[in-house]
Amino acid sequence: MILVDGLPSAVIPADDRGLAYGDGVFRTLVMRNGVAELWSLHYAKLVADCRALGIEPPRDADLQRDLAQIAGKVPDCALRITVTRGSGGRGYAIATGPVTRRMVAASPLPDYPQSWSVHGVVARYCETRLAVQPRLAGIKHLNRLENVLARAEWTDPQIAEGVLLDTDGNVIEGTRSNLFLVEGPDLVTPDLTRCGVAGVTRDRVIEAAAKQVVSCRIERISVARLEAAQEIFLVNSLIGVWPVSALGGRRWTGLAMAARVRKWLDDRSS
Amino acid sequence: MILVDGLPSAVIPADDRGLAYGDGVFRTLVMRNGVAELWSLHYAKLVADCRALGIEPPRDADLQRDLAQIAGKVPDCALRITVTRGSGGRGYAIATGPVTRRMVAASPLPDYPQSWSVHGVVARYCETRLAVQPRLAGIKHLNRLENVLARAEWTDPQIAEGVLLDTDGNVIEGTRSNLFLVEGPDLVTPDLTRCGVAGVTRDRVIEAAAKQVVSCRIERISVARLEAAQEIFLVNSLIGVWPVSALGGRRWTGLAMAARVRKWLDDRSS
Repeated sequence: MILVDGLPSAVIPADDRGLAYGDGVFRTLVMRNGVAELWSLHYAKLVADCRALGIEPPRDADLQRDLAQIAGKVPDCALRITVTRGSGGRGYAIATGPVTRRMVAASPLPDYPQSWSVHGVVARYCETRLAVQPRLAGIKHLNRLENVLARAEWTDPQIAEGVLLDTDGNVIEGTRSNLFLVEGPDLVTPDLTRCGVAGVTRDRVIEAAAKQVVSCRIERISVARLEAAQEIFLVNSLIGVWPVSALGGRRWTGLAMAARVRKWLDDRSS
Repeated sequence: MILVDGLPSAVIPADDRGLAYGDGVFRTLVMRNGVAELWSLHYAKLVADCRALGIEPPRDADLQRDLAQIAGKVPDCALRITVTRGSGGRGYAIATGPVTRRMVAASPLPDYPQSWSVHGVVARYCETRLAVQPRLAGIKHLNRLENVLARAEWTDPQIAEGVLLDTDGNVIEGTRSNLFLVEGPDLVTPDLTRCGVAGVTRDRVIEAAAKQVVSCRIERISVARLEAAQEIFLVNSLIGVWPVSALGGRRWTGLAMAARVRKWLDDRSS
């Protein structure tokens, strides 16, 4: 089921700037029992990302009406909310007062093996590197060819995620997830001010750590440092928390902190 | 007028990966008297760009039928040909055998002042920088937020183009054009192996220079070197050749080489 500007539709106007230039942003979240989980966090991020690109954000009330429509039909689903700068003429210049377009699409919830959350996942390093672009860093925009190319590097369904480095060799994130390291009693997550997507779940882990008086630092991370961590785990709104059991030549057996973080999130997921 | 997979249509499927991720490529060219100018060059570039992303290119015969349809309705127009990886489910992974989607859109030819070709244009430096991404460099893909943000930096209609540097400060291109410097008897154009779009007209200038026994080198260019050039000029399929008369604090009056290059291209534009 897809809603375009509030109406069920399988199509969008062919002159949409999201198609022409990737001129827009998106979010992925979970709807369960008709409730869009952590809506206020996702909406806040959507608004921030729109503003970062100079796109007028859609109104909360309009999106909430869209969500209610979806809840009536598919109360348990993965939601993708896409916002574009709307229709535009030929050329990069933005017409005066373009009208933001919003799309809400519902898909079946992904059916990941339960063991991935409990015993961890196998990940790989991607050869595709993330370009360093501070102007767009952190934003979940529609220019995602790097992620597409990185994800196309493997087909083995046993590999759950690929880890992306930037062109300088810093560890940044998974193709569709953020990443944390456990170093002694502390958490560390990569700096995303030069590239990468700052997800809602990453923010939640950082905030929950602060409440639990666990140090969580944001730093540049080398591959050597990643592989020296006691644990590493991946997070996003759909997967929750996945410990990593194998990456490159390294194996991890410690999963305690990932389990603890999952509990923090589960306790505050509505 | 827009054709989607050969049929007139104002819409495309909402699950197109071009919209979701910018997962596709495009080209802009001129149709005059029903003839798509330099079609074979544009088609070759389209195929090369598709292949660079692992997208099955559309067949020449299919696109030629599209062009013939457009020629019957709007024989003089600007054409934008967009090719995407087609419809895809949720997530970056590419489904087995996705079907390429092609769109051909006709717009009125832009009505630039004739004086811009003859006496030159005023350009500006953009603050938006191009990220260094060798994997995508040269390709005219749909991830064009950098160009959108750069073009949004000015509204003065007297400014014809913005010049983009990469994040290391190298001069790369205009927001929608390639750039050449005149140094003594030689031409120089920026290296596009780290970022930027390699346009058909840039290739044509390089090739024409070789035939005229004019040296044309591809090199990294600093701002200081750009400003020390005797002339600079911008090229693309729609504008042809525009000498630059002003950029930053620098003014140029020499236009001889730009005029010569325009003549090379005019002599071989069909």
